[in-house]
Amino acid sequence: MAAVKLLGAWLSPYNCRVICALKLKGIAYEYMEEDLLNKSPLLLQYNPVHKKIPVLVHGGRSICESAVILRYIDETWPENPLLPADPYERAVALFWIKFADDTTSSIAMMYLTTVEEQEKATKECSDMLETIEEHGLIEGKKFFRGDEINMVDIAFCSVAHWVGVIEEVTGLKAFEPHKFPKLNSWILNFKSVPVIKESLPDTETMLDFFKGRREMVLASKSS
Amino acid sequence: MAAVKLLGAWLSPYNCRVICALKLKGIAYEYMEEDLLNKSPLLLQYNPVHKKIPVLVHGGRSICESAVILRYIDETWPENPLLPADPYERAVALFWIKFADDTTSSIAMMYLTTVEEQEKATKECSDMLETIEEHGLIEGKKFFRGDEINMVDIAFCSVAHWVGVIEEVTGLKAFEPHKFPKLNSWILNFKSVPVIKESLPDTETMLDFFKGRREMVLASKSS
Repeated sequence: MAAVKLLGAWLSPYNCRVICALKLKGIAYEYMEEDLLNKSPLLLQYNPVHKKIPVLVHGGRSICESAVILRYIDETWPENPLLPADPYERAVALFWIKFADDTTSSIAMMYLTTVEEQEKATKECSDMLETIEEHGLIEGKKFFRGDEINMVDIAFCSVAHWVGVIEEVTGLKAFEPHKFPKLNSWILNFKSVPVIKESLPDTETMLDFFKGRREMVLASKSS
Repeated sequence: MAAVKLLGAWLSPYNCRVICALKLKGIAYEYMEEDLLNKSPLLLQYNPVHKKIPVLVHGGRSICESAVILRYIDETWPENPLLPADPYERAVALFWIKFADDTTSSIAMMYLTTVEEQEKATKECSDMLETIEEHGLIEGKKFFRGDEINMVDIAFCSVAHWVGVIEEVTGLKAFEPHKFPKLNSWILNFKSVPVIKESLPDTETMLDFFKGRREMVLASKSS
C-alpha cells in the first residue's frame, strides 16, 4: 500500500484543495477516484461519520474534512509551509479558510435548485465574492495576505475555477470582473501557478459533466 | 486598554468556548458584554465580515470565529496545551471541532422554529449526539480522546450545557442518557471541572432568558 493515498472525486473543489496541497508539497500519493453514487467500502470505513470524500490515508490512518487534511499535510511535511508562522497571521488565514468552508456550498446551490433557490444561491455566491473582494484580498498582493501561494488560496480554488463553470452551465452571473478587480487579479495569479494549473480539473470536462447533470436535474423536476 | 479583551454575549455557547479556554490557560482578560440587538461600533469594527461575537482582541488586533480564537489562544499561550502534539491526533481533534461547529446550530433551531422545523432540528440534534456517542467518545476516557480536558471538550460545551436547557424550555427531547451512556459520563466529567463550572452560564438565568424569548417567538407567530 502506498504511504499516502487520497480517496477523491475529480469534480469536487474540496478534493482539489487536497491535490493542490500535496502537489505544492511535492508529496507522492496514490489517487483513488470514488464513484459518489456507489461509494466504496474503503470510503465508508475511513470516513464513517460523513461518508464523504476527500479522505487522506497516511500510514493506514485516515484524515477527513478537506480543511483538516490541509492542516495535517502542512504539519506533517513542514517544507514549503502553507500557513504563516506568526499566530495572528495564522488566525487570519484560518478565519478565511473557515469562511471558504461556510460559503462554498452556495456555488453548487446555483445549479442544483429551483429558480427561486437559484436566485438566492446566486445572491449568496455574489455576496461571498464581494466579502472576499472587500475584506479578504489586499491591493497589490498576488495571493491572499501576501505574495506566496498559501492555504487560503487553495481553500478558495472553488472561487477560482468552479464559479465560472457553474455560471456557464446555468446562465447565472455571480462574478463580475469589473466589480471585483482584486478577485479577478487573484484568480489569474492563482491559475497561472504551474502546480495549480495541473491540479485543477479540465474546464471542458467539467462543462460536459455539469451540463449533463443539470439536464438530469431539470428532467427529474419537470416529470 | 487591557492586553486581552473579549467581546461576547453570555447566552452564547461560542462565547463560552472562549471563556473556558482563557480560564484554563489562566489568562487575565477584560470582558465586554455585547447587546446583540444593538451591536457596539467596536464589534462592527473588529468583526466587519460577520458582525458576530465572540471577538478576541489582543494587543489591539481582533481575532474572530470561536474555533479560530481557540487555536490562537493555544498557540499564543502554549502552557496547558489544548491540542495534542501529534499531528494525527491533532487532526482528529480538529475534525471533531469542525463537527461541533457544523452541528451546534441544530440546538438553537429546536427552540426558534415551527413545529415541523422543530421536529427536524430535534432529529438533527439527536443524530449529532448519536454520532458523538458512537464515533467521538472513547469508552473509559474522561474527556474526548483522553483523560485531560482539551479543545474538543470545550468546543462541545453547547452539548454539555445548552441542550438540557433548550429541552426544558421546549419540552422536546434530543438527549436520552440511557441511549448515550458515554456522552452522559462525559457531560458529568466536563461539568465537574472547577474552571468549566465557573465558566458556564447559570442554568436558572438561562432558563428564564430562553423561556422569555421563546414566548416572544411564539407570540410573534400567532399574531
